[in-house]
Amino acid sequence: MTKNVLLALALIVSLSSFAQTDEEMLQKIYQTALTEGQSYQWLDHLSNKIGSRLSGSLGAERAVVYTKEIMESLDFDRVFLQPVMVPKWVRGNPEFAYIETAPGDTMKVNICALGGSVATQPSGIKAEVVEVYGLEDLKTRNRSEIEGKIVFFNMPMPASSVLTFQAYGAAVGQRTQGAKEASKLGAVGAIVRSMNLRLDDYPHTGTTSYGDLPKSEHIPTAAISTNDAEKLSSYLKLDSKLKFYFKQNCKTLPDVLSYNVIGEIKGSTYPDEIVLVGGHLDSWDLGDGSHDDGAGCVQSIEVLRLFKKLGIQPKRTLRAVMFMNEENGLRGGTEYAKVAKAEGLNHIFALESDSGGFTPRGFNIDANAESFAHIASWTDLFKPYLTNTFNLGGSGADIGPLKRPGIVLAGLFPDSQRYFDYHHTAIDTFDAINKRELELGAATMASMVYLIDKYGTSN
Amino acid sequence: MTKNVLLALALIVSLSSFAQTDEEMLQKIYQTALTEGQSYQWLDHLSNKIGSRLSGSLGAERAVVYTKEIMESLDFDRVFLQPVMVPKWVRGNPEFAYIETAPGDTMKVNICALGGSVATQPSGIKAEVVEVYGLEDLKTRNRSEIEGKIVFFNMPMPASSVLTFQAYGAAVGQRTQGAKEASKLGAVGAIVRSMNLRLDDYPHTGTTSYGDLPKSEHIPTAAISTNDAEKLSSYLKLDSKLKFYFKQNCKTLPDVLSYNVIGEIKGSTYPDEIVLVGGHLDSWDLGDGSHDDGAGCVQSIEVLRLFKKLGIQPKRTLRAVMFMNEENGLRGGTEYAKVAKAEGLNHIFALESDSGGFTPRGFNIDANAESFAHIASWTDLFKPYLTNTFNLGGSGADIGPLKRPGIVLAGLFPDSQRYFDYHHTAIDTFDAINKRELELGAATMASMVYLIDKYGTSN
Repeated sequence: MTKNVLLALALIVSLSSFAQTDEEMLQKIYQTALTEGQSYQWLDHLSNKIGSRLSGSLGAERAVVYTKEIMESLDFDRVFLQPVMVPKWVRGNPEFAYIETAPGDTMKVNICALGGSVATQPSGIKAEVVEVYGLEDLKTRNRSEIEGKIVFFNMPMPASSVLTFQAYGAAVGQRTQGAKEASKLGAVGAIVRSMNLRLDDYPHTGTTSYGDLPKSEHIPTAAISTNDAEKLSSYLKLDSKLKFYFKQNCKTLPDVLSYNVIGEIKGSTYPDEIVLVGGHLDSWDLGDGSHDDGAGCVQSIEVLRLFKKLGIQPKRTLRAVMFMNEENGLRGGTEYAKVAKAEGLNHIFALESDSGGFTPRGFNIDANAESFAHIASWTDLFKPYLTNTFNLGGSGADIGPLKRPGIVLAGLFPDSQRYFDYHHTAIDTFDAINKRELELGAATMASMVYLIDKYGTSN
Repeated sequence: MTKNVLLALALIVSLSSFAQTDEEMLQKIYQTALTEGQSYQWLDHLSNKIGSRLSGSLGAERAVVYTKEIMESLDFDRVFLQPVMVPKWVRGNPEFAYIETAPGDTMKVNICALGGSVATQPSGIKAEVVEVYGLEDLKTRNRSEIEGKIVFFNMPMPASSVLTFQAYGAAVGQRTQGAKEASKLGAVGAIVRSMNLRLDDYPHTGTTSYGDLPKSEHIPTAAISTNDAEKLSSYLKLDSKLKFYFKQNCKTLPDVLSYNVIGEIKGSTYPDEIVLVGGHLDSWDLGDGSHDDGAGCVQSIEVLRLFKKLGIQPKRTLRAVMFMNEENGLRGGTEYAKVAKAEGLNHIFALESDSGGFTPRGFNIDANAESFAHIASWTDLFKPYLTNTFNLGGSGADIGPLKRPGIVLAGLFPDSQRYFDYHHTAIDTFDAINKRELELGAATMASMVYLIDKYGTSN
């Protein structure tokens, strides 16, 4: 009896000291990130001194050099570049567009070419407009209605979704597939309402795909700001014969050499097990990509810096990876997984931050039931930081190619209400970043990596 | 046996239909708020057409008229004004301040008088400066060190607190008590580092109190921007004899008549039980008070509008209350509770939104253990909206005077990371409001009011 009581007491003491240690460590991680964080200064440089980082651009090259230099200065065990060929699409001169209700009676509107789009003819395109609600609506139209015209996709992101990435998913098909589908019905161009939950004047770029259409059928496509989409729609109701003009001279050049940037701290006990944190280093060309995804890159570096700063020797090998070319090709993520497989590397966990640098709420976790339960058992440790929402499913685009049975993939899950105000626009800039929110994200990632490193991905 | 099974089945069916109904109703509330919400348009008017609403100002009077008119237009059962005498403090001409390291060698800094402060003499005050870390540090100083000087309180809000209102609580004593305590040691003025977690150029006003000091010992006091606080501190390290000059001509005029604005929907079953939602209509004078607390006012009106819009007839009587004079007197909240007591009104629940119009995370709930458990049993209903953080303790200043055994007081608990960037400054303006975040707050409040109305505050 006495022995059992002592045993029970010992168990309680060991459990509580176990628990206390993790609680204390997370507190240290959060406090250090908030009081001595480096991510905000790095992002300031990346955004304001380097700027936009479209794959294949000089900005992207400078960002490769800069993030490599940061990680070298932090004395990681290994910092290296992983070569990858990336597409090089260039916007060319600023786009120009107007609505013409009568010859000479025009109103300028704000557009931007979608990534991957072809140019218009040098003098531009002018044609009548058919407004459709989205891809589903287009399917109901006859070729005779569409042929020779510009299709105007005007399905708004549904405001009713509290989770804005769901709203994005519901509407983005018209951007990625709109030009292709419109071309099949003989359209000469496609104009797409920007993926934006609010009304403003900024067009939002993003990829489009012509699929396997022959090159001769690639029609130019652009996004129009939500304010101008509303305007165009209301004008069409008054005058269905009005014409829309747009001109853009974007083009796709041959692929160029670029790099994933990788920093590593070697694990002490299981050096062959890799725990990865990452973001993507490329951005669109309109803003400086502070939220998408400069934030994720500097947060990932900060995770490893926090380990060094706090003197935590990881048992597993930690890697911070800046993936190249998430936006228009996913070549970096694809190459990373290919090399990992070829080299027989064992990634047990990969966490991406690519949903903006806003207040973190928790994680999306793509894991089997056992691993999810194991990880979800840590939820209470995150409660003091309001980062205890652990959703089953979802992670990040760049780490997707690493998927195999047993690996856990995860995505930082920040507040998403403001994300699509900035996403892929000229106003995704450093001033839209709040220092504390960015730092809390890094701390949340570091805390998860700390627990994964210590306890693994399953019991 | 068969009977028991049927009974059990009936119970399951009734429980699940019960649960589904609440889930469905919350979904309707959130979707309606996000797709047909009115709060953002109202706040646009309140902020951009009316502007700042310091107690006793014309702006405050116009806001009384405007919010009364909104509620009348919504066809509530009763809309009325509740008279209350409020203090009238006026800022006067813009303040002016500089650091002087040698006669004529000056550097302008950004200050604003604290609410309730006296003026300097017309020509201003110039004196040497003693920097202290906060009230505790001041207590360690001798009168000889302080006498005839300006005390510079320079304790930053602690960045390590994830909950920024805790950081505010840790530092704000130097603003509310600094002048009084400095005066007791013979200081001629007090300059206080702004309550702000970031470095910028905006001074943050807020109340100060002279307590029971005789009028002759009231010394002028002002807030200095965090950038200029850092500057002043660094200069003092180089030259402890430098002088600080400031000039302000704020003053306190006689009290004036103002109003709480109250709208009501009569309950069908328990009309004598009142469920209150509210915010405060007054603001400081520097910005337009969009976050503090225009947001809380329009959200409160929106709660009652959502009931009408969705055709929900409340069982209890719902009240939306715009309290006057939270910022510098709490006269509105005090009067409201006094009248409620005199009239024998039975408030069972009061919910205030006064922590900014940011993404809601849940509620602070000041309740006994039984009521808290009852309310916390609804947490899962709020999970789809990420508003399921229910904290025990805390509510809102204006509803505080209603406190009595049995009543439940609550405060909407929004994300707080950006709040003190704007709080009490010239940049607490409408452009810092995100429409969806504001609407989500209103939906969260309406959902809680719906459940309280339906189930009461205890089992």
